Amino acid sequence: MPQLTAGQYMLVYNTFSLTIAAMLGSFVFFVLARNLVGEKYRMSLILSALVVGIAGYHYIRIFNSWDHAYSLVDGMVSATGTPFNDAYRYVDWLLTVPLLLAELVLVLRLPKAQGGPMLWKLVIAAVAMIALGYPGEVSGADMTARFIWGSLSTIPFVYILYVLWVQLGASLPSQPEPVQKLVKNIRLLTLATWGFYPITYCLPYFGIDPSTSVVGIQLGYAIADIFAKCGYGVMIYNIARLKTEADNAAAA
Amino acid sequence: MPQLTAGQYMLVYNTFSLTIAAMLGSFVFFVLARNLVGEKYRMSLILSALVVGIAGYHYIRIFNSWDHAYSLVDGMVSATGTPFNDAYRYVDWLLTVPLLLAELVLVLRLPKAQGGPMLWKLVIAAVAMIALGYPGEVSGADMTARFIWGSLSTIPFVYILYVLWVQLGASLPSQPEPVQKLVKNIRLLTLATWGFYPITYCLPYFGIDPSTSVVGIQLGYAIADIFAKCGYGVMIYNIARLKTEADNAAAA
Repeated sequence: MPQLTAGQYMLVYNTFSLTIAAMLGSFVFFVLARNLVGEKYRMSLILSALVVGIAGYHYIRIFNSWDHAYSLVDGMVSATGTPFNDAYRYVDWLLTVPLLLAELVLVLRLPKAQGGPMLWKLVIAAVAMIALGYPGEVSGADMTARFIWGSLSTIPFVYILYVLWVQLGASLPSQPEPVQKLVKNIRLLTLATWGFYPITYCLPYFGIDPSTSVVGIQLGYAIADIFAKCGYGVMIYNIARLKTEADNAAAA
Repeated sequence: MPQLTAGQYMLVYNTFSLTIAAMLGSFVFFVLARNLVGEKYRMSLILSALVVGIAGYHYIRIFNSWDHAYSLVDGMVSATGTPFNDAYRYVDWLLTVPLLLAELVLVLRLPKAQGGPMLWKLVIAAVAMIALGYPGEVSGADMTARFIWGSLSTIPFVYILYVLWVQLGASLPSQPEPVQKLVKNIRLLTLATWGFYPITYCLPYFGIDPSTSVVGIQLGYAIADIFAKCGYGVMIYNIARLKTEADNAAAA
């Protein structure tokens, strides 16, 4: 573990606490708000709750691991010898990223023959993307390994973007006008937040010192997680509301 | 406790954390999704929630027991002298395996004269299977005891398979077509995941070193538990959804 200043240590510490609060707050929101949307959209809200619940659990573990990796006494930070466990993030993504993609496909209520296979392709690509990124993340000072695994991980990432833009894009004209706009926005949010992870992943290449790099990685992942999980879930909720209103208008 | 490398120790540690997240996430899912199925199928969803809730509790205990059995400081793993408690798994199975079988029998809504006795036979066989396996699991280096108890435990296991294939199979033609397919899939999942436990149980016989054996046993049981509890529960949910849709179509 690199040597940190008290300010650096506390910045990461407080960001982790913020992330726990955001995840658990969003969990309560999705559980309670699911009854405000039509029954056929509720599964997406349930999956949103699952995602932020699982992420909340992992951020409590990440927070505790950070707390145990360093001690701060009289303004001095020292490493305790207990390692900071980076694996929690990857375990979290392995569970939550397929669920995030399922939220989007399910809320659109595509015809079964279309939605089912699309969902499977996205889930398999998401698992491949995360499983391929992990060996690079834990390769330590071996920059070549980080580069190779990171590059391999990009292939399924690009494939996911292809499915979301080309295949899911083809189904958009069948959706109500305001839903189309929201789906386009949620795809952009996905691109912006998911694109933030590889930038964070690459921080060690930018020639910055190891402590700034550690702080940047932790802050980058935490902030990206808040947008990609809580913000994304709120947009899914908005799509579900709009579709519920459209259904009610059609039934009236 | 055998000597482990830091990588072996952390692999088991992270797998336990993954399992906790999977169990607690599934708990939230079954609790929230139970209202998406018809009232007469809700008991199965409630039992699914119970199973993963109880398993989540036990995995928190198992995680803590693993954490206390070893210490990892400056990349070196050493046994603390506190034993790792294997009994949590058997206590868990004693409670959850009868519940898993009850989920399946109840979701099918067999006629009472048929479903009731079948459920009792399955529950008693499940308790016998687990109670007979435990003395072998804790017999340490005594490979003969492990073999005898393991063999005795296999008798009720085969009986459960007989009930599921022959007796429950005989009732399948009265179920809607897609439900029949799902029940066949869930039986295969049961065979594959439950069959995984005896393989894990037999790992000490394969002449591998004790540390690899310990890591393999813990990983094997954890992954089998995720499929046999969370995956199985999701399949029960799908059966309940299909039967709810069939009921609604028949009533319309």
